[in-house]
Amino acid sequence: MRNDCPGCEARESCGLFGAYGVPEACLSIYRGLFSLQHRGQEGAGIVTGDGQRVKSVRGVGLVSDVFSARSWKELKGHLGIGHVRYSTTGSTLIQNVQPIVVECVDGVWAVAHNGNLVNAGELRAMYQESGAIFQTSTDSEVLVHLLADPMFRRRPHRVGRALSELKGSFAFLLMTRNCVMAARDPFGIRPLALGALGQGHVVASETCALRQVGAAYVRDVEPGELLVMDETGLHGSQFAEPAPRAAHCVFELVYFARPDSLVFGENVHKVRLRYGMRLAEEHPVQADIVISVPDSGNSAALGFSRKSGIPLDFGFIRNHYVGRTFIMPLTGQREQGVDMKLSVLHEVVKGQRVVVVDDSIVRGTTSRRRIRFLRQAGAAEVHVRISCPPTAHPCFYGIDFATREELAAGARTVEEIRKFIEADSLGYLSVEGLLSPLQRPNDFCAACFTGKYPLDPSRAQGKKDWETNRPDGELGLNL
Amino acid sequence: MRNDCPGCEARESCGLFGAYGVPEACLSIYRGLFSLQHRGQEGAGIVTGDGQRVKSVRGVGLVSDVFSARSWKELKGHLGIGHVRYSTTGSTLIQNVQPIVVECVDGVWAVAHNGNLVNAGELRAMYQESGAIFQTSTDSEVLVHLLADPMFRRRPHRVGRALSELKGSFAFLLMTRNCVMAARDPFGIRPLALGALGQGHVVASETCALRQVGAAYVRDVEPGELLVMDETGLHGSQFAEPAPRAAHCVFELVYFARPDSLVFGENVHKVRLRYGMRLAEEHPVQADIVISVPDSGNSAALGFSRKSGIPLDFGFIRNHYVGRTFIMPLTGQREQGVDMKLSVLHEVVKGQRVVVVDDSIVRGTTSRRRIRFLRQAGAAEVHVRISCPPTAHPCFYGIDFATREELAAGARTVEEIRKFIEADSLGYLSVEGLLSPLQRPNDFCAACFTGKYPLDPSRAQGKKDWETNRPDGELGLNL
Amino acid sequence: MRNDCPGCEARESCGLFGAYGVPEACLSIYRGLFSLQHRGQEGAGIVTGDGQRVKSVRGVGLVSDVFSARSWKELKGHLGIGHVRYSTTGSTLIQNVQPIVVECVDGVWAVAHNGNLVNAGELRAMYQESGAIFQTSTDSEVLVHLLADPMFRRRPHRVGRALSELKGSFAFLLMTRNCVMAARDPFGIRPLALGALGQGHVVASETCALRQVGAAYVRDVEPGELLVMDETGLHGSQFAEPAPRAAHCVFELVYFARPDSLVFGENVHKVRLRYGMRLAEEHPVQADIVISVPDSGNSAALGFSRKSGIPLDFGFIRNHYVGRTFIMPLTGQREQGVDMKLSVLHEVVKGQRVVVVDDSIVRGTTSRRRIRFLRQAGAAEVHVRISCPPTAHPCFYGIDFATREELAAGARTVEEIRKFIEADSLGYLSVEGLLSPLQRPNDFCAACFTGKYPLDPSRAQGKKDWETNRPDGELGLNL
Amino acid sequence: MRNDCPGCEARESCGLFGAYGVPEACLSIYRGLFSLQHRGQEGAGIVTGDGQRVKSVRGVGLVSDVFSARSWKELKGHLGIGHVRYSTTGSTLIQNVQPIVVECVDGVWAVAHNGNLVNAGELRAMYQESGAIFQTSTDSEVLVHLLADPMFRRRPHRVGRALSELKGSFAFLLMTRNCVMAARDPFGIRPLALGALGQGHVVASETCALRQVGAAYVRDVEPGELLVMDETGLHGSQFAEPAPRAAHCVFELVYFARPDSLVFGENVHKVRLRYGMRLAEEHPVQADIVISVPDSGNSAALGFSRKSGIPLDFGFIRNHYVGRTFIMPLTGQREQGVDMKLSVLHEVVKGQRVVVVDDSIVRGTTSRRRIRFLRQAGAAEVHVRISCPPTAHPCFYGIDFATREELAAGARTVEEIRKFIEADSLGYLSVEGLLSPLQRPNDFCAACFTGKYPLDPSRAQGKKDWETNRPDGELGLNL
Repeated sequence: MRNDCPGCEARESCGLFGAYGVPEACLSIYRGLFSLQHRGQEGAGIVTGDGQRVKSVRGVGLVSDVFSARSWKELKGHLGIGHVRYSTTGSTLIQNVQPIVVECVDGVWAVAHNGNLVNAGELRAMYQESGAIFQTSTDSEVLVHLLADPMFRRRPHRVGRALSELKGSFAFLLMTRNCVMAARDPFGIRPLALGALGQGHVVASETCALRQVGAAYVRDVEPGELLVMDETGLHGSQFAEPAPRAAHCVFELVYFARPDSLVFGENVHKVRLRYGMRLAEEHPVQADIVISVPDSGNSAALGFSRKSGIPLDFGFIRNHYVGRTFIMPLTGQREQGVDMKLSVLHEVVKGQRVVVVDDSIVRGTTSRRRIRFLRQAGAAEVHVRISCPPTAHPCFYGIDFATREELAAGARTVEEIRKFIEADSLGYLSVEGLLSPLQRPNDFCAACFTGKYPLDPSRAQGKKDWETNRPDGELGLNL
Repeated sequence: MRNDCPGCEARESCGLFGAYGVPEACLSIYRGLFSLQHRGQEGAGIVTGDGQRVKSVRGVGLVSDVFSARSWKELKGHLGIGHVRYSTTGSTLIQNVQPIVVECVDGVWAVAHNGNLVNAGELRAMYQESGAIFQTSTDSEVLVHLLADPMFRRRPHRVGRALSELKGSFAFLLMTRNCVMAARDPFGIRPLALGALGQGHVVASETCALRQVGAAYVRDVEPGELLVMDETGLHGSQFAEPAPRAAHCVFELVYFARPDSLVFGENVHKVRLRYGMRLAEEHPVQADIVISVPDSGNSAALGFSRKSGIPLDFGFIRNHYVGRTFIMPLTGQREQGVDMKLSVLHEVVKGQRVVVVDDSIVRGTTSRRRIRFLRQAGAAEVHVRISCPPTAHPCFYGIDFATREELAAGARTVEEIRKFIEADSLGYLSVEGLLSPLQRPNDFCAACFTGKYPLDPSRAQGKKDWETNRPDGELGLNL
Repeated sequence: MRNDCPGCEARESCGLFGAYGVPEACLSIYRGLFSLQHRGQEGAGIVTGDGQRVKSVRGVGLVSDVFSARSWKELKGHLGIGHVRYSTTGSTLIQNVQPIVVECVDGVWAVAHNGNLVNAGELRAMYQESGAIFQTSTDSEVLVHLLADPMFRRRPHRVGRALSELKGSFAFLLMTRNCVMAARDPFGIRPLALGALGQGHVVASETCALRQVGAAYVRDVEPGELLVMDETGLHGSQFAEPAPRAAHCVFELVYFARPDSLVFGENVHKVRLRYGMRLAEEHPVQADIVISVPDSGNSAALGFSRKSGIPLDFGFIRNHYVGRTFIMPLTGQREQGVDMKLSVLHEVVKGQRVVVVDDSIVRGTTSRRRIRFLRQAGAAEVHVRISCPPTAHPCFYGIDFATREELAAGARTVEEIRKFIEADSLGYLSVEGLLSPLQRPNDFCAACFTGKYPLDPSRAQGKKDWETNRPDGELGLNL
Repeated sequence: MRNDCPGCEARESCGLFGAYGVPEACLSIYRGLFSLQHRGQEGAGIVTGDGQRVKSVRGVGLVSDVFSARSWKELKGHLGIGHVRYSTTGSTLIQNVQPIVVECVDGVWAVAHNGNLVNAGELRAMYQESGAIFQTSTDSEVLVHLLADPMFRRRPHRVGRALSELKGSFAFLLMTRNCVMAARDPFGIRPLALGALGQGHVVASETCALRQVGAAYVRDVEPGELLVMDETGLHGSQFAEPAPRAAHCVFELVYFARPDSLVFGENVHKVRLRYGMRLAEEHPVQADIVISVPDSGNSAALGFSRKSGIPLDFGFIRNHYVGRTFIMPLTGQREQGVDMKLSVLHEVVKGQRVVVVDDSIVRGTTSRRRIRFLRQAGAAEVHVRISCPPTAHPCFYGIDFATREELAAGARTVEEIRKFIEADSLGYLSVEGLLSPLQRPNDFCAACFTGKYPLDPSRAQGKKDWETNRPDGELGLNL
């Protein structure tokens, strides 16, 4: 039941899309980013090149707000990379919008990043100590300093060597005037898929973006792989050994990715359907209808209904115009029963014992409000089923659970949460239920549920770390 | 499978919201219009009053685009009316955005209209002949000329007398500096519901808007009724006898209204669920899954699944960011398999015999494209079921089927349509199936399906009629 | 020393520009309005036609803000009219921006007006009484009601008959889809000049606009004349007898018009030069330098210097970026010596006896502040010379002296004003000095100085009259 | 006769304004920049601090466009620096707008620069070689790399040492979270003045900005001086020995600076007045009137008139709305006699022998067009007098004469230029006439006239040098 209030939800991943050898690359990148919009709504940018010149357009807001017909005249060329951003580190300021574009001694570089670099802080400090200046407050900027570092620049496999200095989660797209590169951390924490489009290639965070542009899925970029696309063709190599066991972020399946994407070899909808079925097994209940919190709970609700035999119905109607708009002040009215996003379908829930399936409980206040609405509409009972376990541990690879901790984890038991949200019953999916439906359960990171980290998190960098700890305040450029 | 291209879909109704005796009325009107946004995305306006002064803000675009925090400082007062517009008559120009605000001898009047006046053309001509000037090209403007006409102005029951001159479909909201009025045509063609909010009252095209603002549904404004809200309270009276048989527009149930609304005494979701069940009875099929064209086909698809026993699944994923955005050019790519709005969930439909439930086929090209996508995704069979009959006759009360006629009705048989869209089978709901699930089937107009009009349509006014037939062209003010 | 504060200056005239038979008429109209921008900065509009369709673009603000390259694609055709507006009646709301465009029974009419109609209130009341509705709060709208009135519409010389109903000052441009008309009141109060451009004609409030578009000045539109331009050519006729004595507004020469314009047969710069020379004769003074309040006092200061032999110098520097900008708050700082528009050139005035020549004193506070600045800069003496007499009487023909009366006229003597502004001496031009340098002094209205009105002012309509006197407040459409 | 076409005029200087210890420093900086707007219209930025946090607002366009009331809430604090930009190096892209704000190891630095660094290219190359990345294409960015360089950072007098590495012309403002610094190159090429305001201090490129904010002029920042303002007070020190002879840019006096400024100890208006007088001596002529090309020629024209005894008159009227606006296309009409900026006052020049005084001839085409207009208006003779010598040599310190060279200098003789512009006579001020009226003529750089450079120009960096010479094109971020 997340998403209703900007300040209280888990941070999402960013989205990447790159193209090489694609006529009017900007058009494909635009459409690719458009289909990845669910991964980040705070900012978007596209950088393209025609082999000679590099051009970029970036801005705060949605893809459809940032780019206009005029962008098209600007963004010439057959190669390029794009990014949609949900802040992991760095505030939502324009200079933090990616791709980052800089000039080194050997020309212009553009960089787009999805993930979280746990050693960004120490690298930043090291480079600053030796005289580097930083223009953004994102962790991603350290990569361009590595690339520009003579240590790497003057030696073979420069980009790979630079990447191998990074710790943490990353899918990177890099671009020079005549080349696009894609890379993934050795644990394969974040997804990145390769597609074929005409004579060229595209890469994207999710396969839904490949399909959107009419590209055929080829394979995933491998953990530890650097993929180079230039006029000589497509070349893959390992910049680092893949980790013995991958650590794909299971949260991508739980709720980041779009249901029609293939992520880490799994179809997202199918996985969530199975989660719903597992939930029905793990937490059965006597009820009249199963309803979903749309759209994130749809697949799991369908699975719950199928397994339990309790009929699915539509108990919430979603207002599709919410989410990107100026919202009028609702001072004191929120508690009176106002929900701009979801409306209860009274005729469906009246007198019914209702199972509500959702993918998460964040702070619990939204869940409680919606449960109250269901009761006001006449629901006889409200049983909440969550299609993942409670998050009990912080994530250092790009998901911001800071605000979650109020409610979840050791702080409260499931029973305490149930009481808080005023549900008749509450059931979370078990860790076993989360992993066992997957084809390769050992290749996933579920540390936020289990505390078992694939990588030492001690050096991890929290969001805004250097912003808030310094007296000089944030590197704040508002344009 | 409508809605994908702005130029080829059926015209929708407009949405109305009025409030009297509500502190900061603009806030409630804003939220009410927000929940009626599905009834019109082309323009929006709010007019409020504090008993002394009348203020208005209007603009082209969505509710969230037109109004800003600044609007709030402007729109003072405890009474007001608002409108979201989908053009029925009049082009999408700013001066056609309602509410219309004018000054007559007795002060400022604001008018908002949902419907279509079939005698607007002759009234307009008559008033112009006697010297009137018109500022808009909407049919709604004739009402303010009637109100200003000394014939009506100087006699009792002025507003009612003026309204009784109008032929066609209408729900009207009117406002002066200290009064809000609501009226509905004698056939009750368009919906209009009354709610109670604190010490005041609100009126809205659909009950979902009442719920959005926390108001309790009281009753519908009756056919032929004029409801006056002022400092003396709420007063209803009949300005005209209600028609012996009402002629509620059945299309409101088929697809205009939101599923959580109560319209003409029927819950929209429940009706559509029943339509889906009827469809399963009328056009049974051997299949593996039932999928909906989201979101308009959801309720009927659920009904079809329930009745037929064929499992429901999610075969299309809807991109929620489509629909209100600048869309990049897709020259020559549309046919290559690009659909910015819906993506096929390959893993769901692969190898399956699929029933697709939708609420309409407009020109058929979109349906055909989506069926092709399903087959490309591996669907073994595609069976299309439409939750209403084919529209075979024009509507003169506010729904623009002009562009529909290419395909539907006498022009083509169902079999011809099936061939065109390349479906394995195609079934439309019968007229009997459309009306019999309703509590009072005789009180509905289904003329677009049956040709039986409640009112002589010979004088009906087509959209843009006077615009295109005059040499001087449109009354085109672009601000 | 006017113009420094928007609320305390005399209202200016509006500017008109029309074209017929000019390819891409919008371009000429744009450039014409651009050179008439000094006559009105609150709003601008252009309406054009190609013989078939009529298109318009209007907006609040400067000509360069309202029109864009996109306007050009819209505004097709070889005929059109344009307007820049300084409110005389009506607030600065978008719907009051002219040209007004309406539809009557015989098609679209566009109207642009410079002047003030003293019987607008009674005509408006009369038409409203008989049922007319008004969309603006300007006095100009009554003309379209006259034109639409069957009384006039069905008879020959319709436009001329309608115009002859109007009392007050007016230069009008009218347009239908294939015709442009220009008319001037029988007293010739406001200027209007005819020019030849290629095969076509243009009309403009001032000849500087003719020159700007490369047109040759032909003659003035005559008092009481209606000029019709259509495909049959240019036709002039008298809709009313010219008044025995014209009543050209002498304020056009004093400060409305641009120095390079020929207005009422007089070159504005030359007249002001003569005013400066007369001032030197009427109010001689021993001084070291003559300085102007730029730019309005430039010509008169030059004349004063020439006649007196006292050298001209530049004592004020004008910041050209002031006047159209967001100005930051200056709370409490204004009095500390801040003037965003004019800076004193200390090195010029230090130790000097300074004559300051300006065209008016409005409230006196600005004059006083600037005199203080001059003294702070070291001026030994400050002598103020004003190039017109004190305004002692209201103007009913388009100039708003309401706010002037605080200081000028019977309320204070010249000596009292001198004391208030803290000048060492103060001299106003005499009425004799104002009129005698003109070629036909008897053809001018100087009623604001003399109280001798050419027309009975008893019915005059003050600005915002019906707006403020009605309980229902203004007809306020903010778009 | 410059300024009429953006692409063909000499580049102007930038403007700087800084404040320390001034409550609501942003207000003073805004007003200071506003009065320095003539020094740069392409972009503006303000950075402020409250001792803890640093905030900035920057944008493309005029001061009044970039800042809004909202900027005020953002820009808290009692210290800050601001910049208006006319590109010297770097394209007009948003990331090139100054102040530059970056983060080094010791916190946030903001930098604003007026001038041109002739060794920026080699410093940039050196730092890039050692791994630095650059975010802008301006020469100014090298200073922040110097400041961050451990070579300088770890040693005393860090800022001074960094500054002493720079060659070329510079006035710099620097800022950290609690300190403002001002510095000037050892030759004093660009102006920078210190003022006292209340308990605090301000620095500005010209004294007109001090006066605008109510500050008292204290003294100039000295050549080679670094001025530090922090909570311990105001501290000046020499980071470099002042050059034995200063090299103040004489072009500041000729046309960059505002007439009411004191620059290099000279009042600009007085100097130009003397130039006009010298011109009258050096190039006397028999004529009837002297006219100026407003406003840049005003002071010199007055001097010419005074010395020659030929009366001054106003022959050109300037449209104050030109210069910051969207200008409509004038295809093919420019040559027909259209000048959106200046209009000829026919009545003044008709039949007269006219002396036109201006401050420069750039390409000559504008001069020729205006001379033709004067003749069309009836001028009997046109004599052109230019208040500086012909520019015969490139400037490496911030003035872009690249485009001037077409006409001026060795390429053409004065007689050839006269013929080209079709003047009856043409006279330029002599170098002797340029320098001898100054109090310390030896302290000025007139290299563009004489070729005698104060500094070896061989390493000078032309505008866009690295942009155009690199295959990877410009560092182009369009936001």
